[in-house]
Amino acid sequence: MGKYLERAETVVKRIEELSSITEEQGCITRTYGTKAFLEGRNKVYDWMVAAGLETSFDNIGNVRGKLLSDTLNAKTFVIGSHIDTVVNAGKFDGPLGVLMGLDILEQLIQSKAKLPFHIELIAFSDEEGVRFHTTYLGSKVVAGSFESITLDRKDANGIALKEVIAENGGDYLLLEKDKIEDWLGYFEIHIEQGPVLYERNIPVAVVTAIAGQRRAEITFIGVAGHAGTVPMDMRQDALATAADFIIETEKFALLKKDKLVATTGKLEVVQSASNVIPGKVICSLDLRSADLEVLNIAYEKIKAICDEAAEKRKVLVEWNLVQQTTPTLCDEKLTNQLKDSIGKSGYPIIELVSGAGHDGVPISAVSPITMLFVRCFKGISHNPLENAETVDIAAAIEVGEGFINMVLSNKL
Amino acid sequence: MGKYLERAETVVKRIEELSSITEEQGCITRTYGTKAFLEGRNKVYDWMVAAGLETSFDNIGNVRGKLLSDTLNAKTFVIGSHIDTVVNAGKFDGPLGVLMGLDILEQLIQSKAKLPFHIELIAFSDEEGVRFHTTYLGSKVVAGSFESITLDRKDANGIALKEVIAENGGDYLLLEKDKIEDWLGYFEIHIEQGPVLYERNIPVAVVTAIAGQRRAEITFIGVAGHAGTVPMDMRQDALATAADFIIETEKFALLKKDKLVATTGKLEVVQSASNVIPGKVICSLDLRSADLEVLNIAYEKIKAICDEAAEKRKVLVEWNLVQQTTPTLCDEKLTNQLKDSIGKSGYPIIELVSGAGHDGVPISAVSPITMLFVRCFKGISHNPLENAETVDIAAAIEVGEGFINMVLSNKL
Repeated sequence: MGKYLERAETVVKRIEELSSITEEQGCITRTYGTKAFLEGRNKVYDWMVAAGLETSFDNIGNVRGKLLSDTLNAKTFVIGSHIDTVVNAGKFDGPLGVLMGLDILEQLIQSKAKLPFHIELIAFSDEEGVRFHTTYLGSKVVAGSFESITLDRKDANGIALKEVIAENGGDYLLLEKDKIEDWLGYFEIHIEQGPVLYERNIPVAVVTAIAGQRRAEITFIGVAGHAGTVPMDMRQDALATAADFIIETEKFALLKKDKLVATTGKLEVVQSASNVIPGKVICSLDLRSADLEVLNIAYEKIKAICDEAAEKRKVLVEWNLVQQTTPTLCDEKLTNQLKDSIGKSGYPIIELVSGAGHDGVPISAVSPITMLFVRCFKGISHNPLENAETVDIAAAIEVGEGFINMVLSNKL
Repeated sequence: MGKYLERAETVVKRIEELSSITEEQGCITRTYGTKAFLEGRNKVYDWMVAAGLETSFDNIGNVRGKLLSDTLNAKTFVIGSHIDTVVNAGKFDGPLGVLMGLDILEQLIQSKAKLPFHIELIAFSDEEGVRFHTTYLGSKVVAGSFESITLDRKDANGIALKEVIAENGGDYLLLEKDKIEDWLGYFEIHIEQGPVLYERNIPVAVVTAIAGQRRAEITFIGVAGHAGTVPMDMRQDALATAADFIIETEKFALLKKDKLVATTGKLEVVQSASNVIPGKVICSLDLRSADLEVLNIAYEKIKAICDEAAEKRKVLVEWNLVQQTTPTLCDEKLTNQLKDSIGKSGYPIIELVSGAGHDGVPISAVSPITMLFVRCFKGISHNPLENAETVDIAAAIEVGEGFINMVLSNKL
């Protein structure tokens, strides 16, 4: 364990160094294409070069470090995660996977291992989608699923994505040539961003799937009225209706145990006042499951719950589906090898579903993928309090390196 | 009925005329002390003078028209309501009572009735409390309960109440001399501002009490988290807790039938995002009842409901009582006479509790009070759609005049 701990300390040092590069002092914010972003990716570029990788920026701004095989027609195995952040982020979400990948490749280079396939380390340029309200810019390009219509999207200052690409030295007409054609597999290490490993006191877990999502915006239209003069049984209270919907949805989701999460994160009472019965409420619903059938059934059931709450109070409902993604399954063979590596390293083997999206989602369309989760403090993420213990990072290095060695020897 | 209808048409014409005087064109806004307010009160002054009342402005800005008795040591019976409005108000809330009072006094003057007591018509200058966030400025002065500390309150532009009084020709050091010492009674006609008469298809009702109120601000502090990664049974969702509180409070209040209303009108999810489990929610509670015991018991019970909802989800609660008023009872003798007049006019006799506050609240401390409610369209108030039918106003004139005549002949 000692050597892994030492390597983990180096990984953490690099994570700290990267986290000091930010758009705004006092917090960590490094959104796509900004000055801080460019400075951050240059730092990663330098590390990759120093490690001995054949390093370049591609047109969307990913940093790509290759360790080439001299085998004829070799395929490519990618290790990756992202280096952009949300606003006021934590240090680990993204950079952990990039810098652990770097560490593993450094060891491979030092061991002068003969590679039966190419290995590529990618620091994806935009996974969070903060600036252009669209996720996976970097990994979509590499997977070949980038949609050129996205180029005309504008940020809050009216600057289009294609302008940002051009400004930062990319050619947005050549994005397609950056895709990888000959995928062998994809491996990503990431903090869990949830509390399960923390609560169960286990350092790492394999990810079996990335949840699919339905996101809806729901508007309840009742009748505003004087809080003092309208008897309880004559009200058409939009907020009470929304509350009923939230509680019944929570009850339903609780019954599904680990199969489903349902969240109302936003709720606005339109023209609210403490002495006015709410006439209009707009709220969000975020529904996720790794099981498409569970997700589909839950979506219809919760829509019915919503209608019922509204009907009970003679309130109208407008229901808008604003986003949907299908669940992504991790590759069984790769995931079994990852489990073997966890077992060999002496840790309990736990399977988790990722409720959050990851770069593996677009890549899963063109390659087998697998993911390793690392315990994080209380499951806190997207927050300055985000933390992963160095000892857990050491465990993940041991497991990740063992996994890569298995893949190398099995040649898949 | 014909003559009452004609008089009602005059009342409505005056209400329309007053409603055209506004701070902002396209809506009705006439808050205390503004240019529109001054123009409005001048119009009311002119009408009172034309009717033959001994008319003046007092220091807080009330318009007061006296019809004096020549009886020695005569007491004063007041008919009143207010002429200030909320922002984007309806026409009837306030002006209806003032202009129906004017109509009744015009008839009295024309009939040359001998008065056993003084009658005073008062157009109160501030009942809504929009500008200085304090209600009943006008009626508190007349009741002798104005608190001089209020003089230093400032409006949104930093102008103190005492400056406004001085600017508009009042002397804020002489407010106390404007109080009425020898009260005989107080009568106010007002739109219901609730849906009961509209739903039951009845033009008028007597008011037996004005509800007391408890207003609380409640903060739920849970733990923010990722909507995709925190399992349902590991959440400390502040919004789900607030929803539970709202639903259980609604259930409790529904059981109390017409004895209680409970409303959450404001609700804010702090730092909300559709993919974040709410960590903090601030909401309001407005609780009203005409029965002090019901109000007290309900307040404690709902506080317990709140604690229970929070405990269930390991969420913290901060509960702040921000306002409380006790219920105001209308005078039994006056109210019985008002009921007699309703019966004599051929209308069903209905008793209502006023959930909204009225100028009678401060006056009840020094005088017997009674109130007549007039049906309004769907119970809508504080809204441009506020409406009272002319035929209902005619009914209220008949009932109100009959009542005043009874009071005059009974000499109380």
